[in-house]
Amino acid sequence: MLKHPFLFALVLFFSASQAQNDDSLVIRKIYNESLRSHVAYSNLEHLCIKIGSRLSGSQQLTDAIQYTKQLMTDMKLDTVYLQEVKIPHWIRGDKEICRVTSTDISMNLDNCALGGSVGTGVKGITANVIEVSSFDQLKALGKTVINGKIVFFNQVADPTHINTFEAYGEVAYQRVHGASEASKYGAVAVLVRSLNPGHDDYPHTGIMAYDKSVAMIPAFALSTNSADKLSKLLKTAKDISVYIRNTSEWRTDTTGFNVIGELKGSKFPDEIITVGGHLDSWDEGQAAHDDGAGCMEAIEVLRIFKTTGIRPQRTIRAVMFMDEEIHQSGGRKYAEMAGKNNEKHYFAVESDEGVAIPVGFSVQGSDLHVAAIKKFLPYLRPYGIYFIEKGYGGVDLQELSAFKIPLISIVPDNSRYFDYHHSPNDTFDKVNEREMQFASAAIASLIYILDKSGY
Amino acid sequence: MLKHPFLFALVLFFSASQAQNDDSLVIRKIYNESLRSHVAYSNLEHLCIKIGSRLSGSQQLTDAIQYTKQLMTDMKLDTVYLQEVKIPHWIRGDKEICRVTSTDISMNLDNCALGGSVGTGVKGITANVIEVSSFDQLKALGKTVINGKIVFFNQVADPTHINTFEAYGEVAYQRVHGASEASKYGAVAVLVRSLNPGHDDYPHTGIMAYDKSVAMIPAFALSTNSADKLSKLLKTAKDISVYIRNTSEWRTDTTGFNVIGELKGSKFPDEIITVGGHLDSWDEGQAAHDDGAGCMEAIEVLRIFKTTGIRPQRTIRAVMFMDEEIHQSGGRKYAEMAGKNNEKHYFAVESDEGVAIPVGFSVQGSDLHVAAIKKFLPYLRPYGIYFIEKGYGGVDLQELSAFKIPLISIVPDNSRYFDYHHSPNDTFDKVNEREMQFASAAIASLIYILDKSGY
Repeated sequence: MLKHPFLFALVLFFSASQAQNDDSLVIRKIYNESLRSHVAYSNLEHLCIKIGSRLSGSQQLTDAIQYTKQLMTDMKLDTVYLQEVKIPHWIRGDKEICRVTSTDISMNLDNCALGGSVGTGVKGITANVIEVSSFDQLKALGKTVINGKIVFFNQVADPTHINTFEAYGEVAYQRVHGASEASKYGAVAVLVRSLNPGHDDYPHTGIMAYDKSVAMIPAFALSTNSADKLSKLLKTAKDISVYIRNTSEWRTDTTGFNVIGELKGSKFPDEIITVGGHLDSWDEGQAAHDDGAGCMEAIEVLRIFKTTGIRPQRTIRAVMFMDEEIHQSGGRKYAEMAGKNNEKHYFAVESDEGVAIPVGFSVQGSDLHVAAIKKFLPYLRPYGIYFIEKGYGGVDLQELSAFKIPLISIVPDNSRYFDYHHSPNDTFDKVNEREMQFASAAIASLIYILDKSGY
Repeated sequence: MLKHPFLFALVLFFSASQAQNDDSLVIRKIYNESLRSHVAYSNLEHLCIKIGSRLSGSQQLTDAIQYTKQLMTDMKLDTVYLQEVKIPHWIRGDKEICRVTSTDISMNLDNCALGGSVGTGVKGITANVIEVSSFDQLKALGKTVINGKIVFFNQVADPTHINTFEAYGEVAYQRVHGASEASKYGAVAVLVRSLNPGHDDYPHTGIMAYDKSVAMIPAFALSTNSADKLSKLLKTAKDISVYIRNTSEWRTDTTGFNVIGELKGSKFPDEIITVGGHLDSWDEGQAAHDDGAGCMEAIEVLRIFKTTGIRPQRTIRAVMFMDEEIHQSGGRKYAEMAGKNNEKHYFAVESDEGVAIPVGFSVQGSDLHVAAIKKFLPYLRPYGIYFIEKGYGGVDLQELSAFKIPLISIVPDNSRYFDYHHSPNDTFDKVNEREMQFASAAIASLIYILDKSGY
């Protein structure tokens, strides 16, 4: 048939590079749209300033559910709906107190109750403080020393980790398990150094968990600067006592909703690409980085596709997940319903590492998945995406691993993330618009090329 | 001789990889030292808060010269000295005024005189405004329309450029040559939209130049938000008049000093590695990003070498250059003296693109230079240095190209740079410590490996 196999090969070659060229042009179009638009940033401003932080069970979370549903409805997406989720309800109560109250020293420490902590009772607790920097040290001191005391966990997050998530991960045990571990030895409460590797005056909250076999004692975060001050004080005066008071408490579970908006696929509408962030947050600050921005980027991805007229082959679904911070019930519910409804899932992307310049994607999946997706890096490299590597796929996506699909996280540079994380410092004005535009564009581009070319 | 060439090869292989491994450990040590130290950031705080911005010819620049000399003297460097440079002296004068003064509208515009502008005279100038967005448009309007008017250059920096320096570069002609170009057609002054691609209320200054063949007219920067407002106004009312007043003027040249500190090389003390930033700045803000940080990073590189006990083979010279912003006389003087003294230069590095996470190095030199230096990228890749590419080597280093050596710039991500550049927004609190630590470490590591292994 082929008289000129060489010419045929040449035609194939040109078709392939033409397709590649067309795809590059589409990606350029995606970046142009994102870099010119102020919509996502303005939506984030509304979410952060008009609504505020969005603790599970709070009125603000309910407001945010309505707001994001309305946003996607106004965009005239093909489908917008709510998915009911039972969510936990913990309240912080009164503004907490944490004060050094030794006879000759009175000093307030920057503090807040850790997420999930019980209260001290309205009268508060006064006790001597003992500092430790590991569970081994706690064990070595034992009941004789610890009983009746407030334990101060002060292991410093190591700033020499290149990835701040590693620094955080290494000391997270203090926050999560410190209270129950100290309670075993009769401690009456714990103070936990904030997990950020930098130095600031913000207490950084976050989830803590109780081992139900021991007494539940109150748990507070101290800012790193306050932790340093307290530690210095303890070096000079051993019998420092501290007064703490919080009225935090657990309430009965309540109802929340994953907020879902879809742009139907042109060719395989039954195959789902999920792009998400979590709408709930801690109650300090405005939860701009964690994870208001991730949610607004997910919606922005759909806006970019619609505005540019790029029609995806598969259905792209933006999901604002519930309850990432406490029990991850939103992610679980989403995967459970996907299973019940026999949905076909193709891959999922999450943005939940704050806003900074995106430098890569991490892919949780088989080696084959990672290799196949990595092939598309050259499309993104001109836009400052330097790597696609095997890694973690995002908290809310974990239960989707049952579908054996790649779970992907966008990776912004993480140098600044823990300056904001779970603290009053996580406010809208700390989010740079251009960095957010780059994140939306990178996610939209990855979705475009994987949907178009397959993996 | 060789009975077992295979074994010999094996030994060579192990020696090579052992050396590589040792170098990796040294680089790890450099990063550890930088990431743990608060010295450079604290020095920058002093420079920005206690001294402030450092316009050529100002008292603050003189103070900064003394301060950095003292810093390096206190570090007990091997040599610390000043290199006299004749520097220009322009003063801003009174706080400028720029106000829309049409009969029914009175509106202040965020403004400042551009660097090098002449004054309006104490009475100021009132004239009608005409908006253009290119020199072609100006030419098309011609003398009939332009004569007696204030020309408003409003070409918007294109936010779709991935590299913000390209967006800036594309519109810089308005600031640099706008006044003389408009003067050709009889304009009485120019207002120039700030060159940043984002939207803010800060007027961004910067150098402008006069073509001496036409009348020198005053030149002002408007913030991008004010430029948008004025443009909107001009669309509805054509005969908008604006009152401007500035008392800027040129004074006679004065004397400044490149500040130089050296750590002598152990093996080739006559061969010089230059690491620099520029100490002068514009007078708005505190010149933290441009280029206080670059100077403090250069000093930090020497501190890291000294503190870790890593002895360089060649002499490393930290240079705080004079007068980058106006006439680049510091860089010229440095190269001139290097020539006169028959110095041997090995390579030079500059940090003058602000503080953000460093992502690469750009190398100005021959292709062989670039390729040879690029070989060392694997040492830096674990620390988030993603590229070493042919590119620009830094303003202050340009005259060193006579030595045919590689001129290297550290490249931080540039998304945020023009939010600060030449504006009141360039303050110490906008510099992130960790990002600065990464920059110092990256520069020190590159110097270490190039000095150790050659290129």
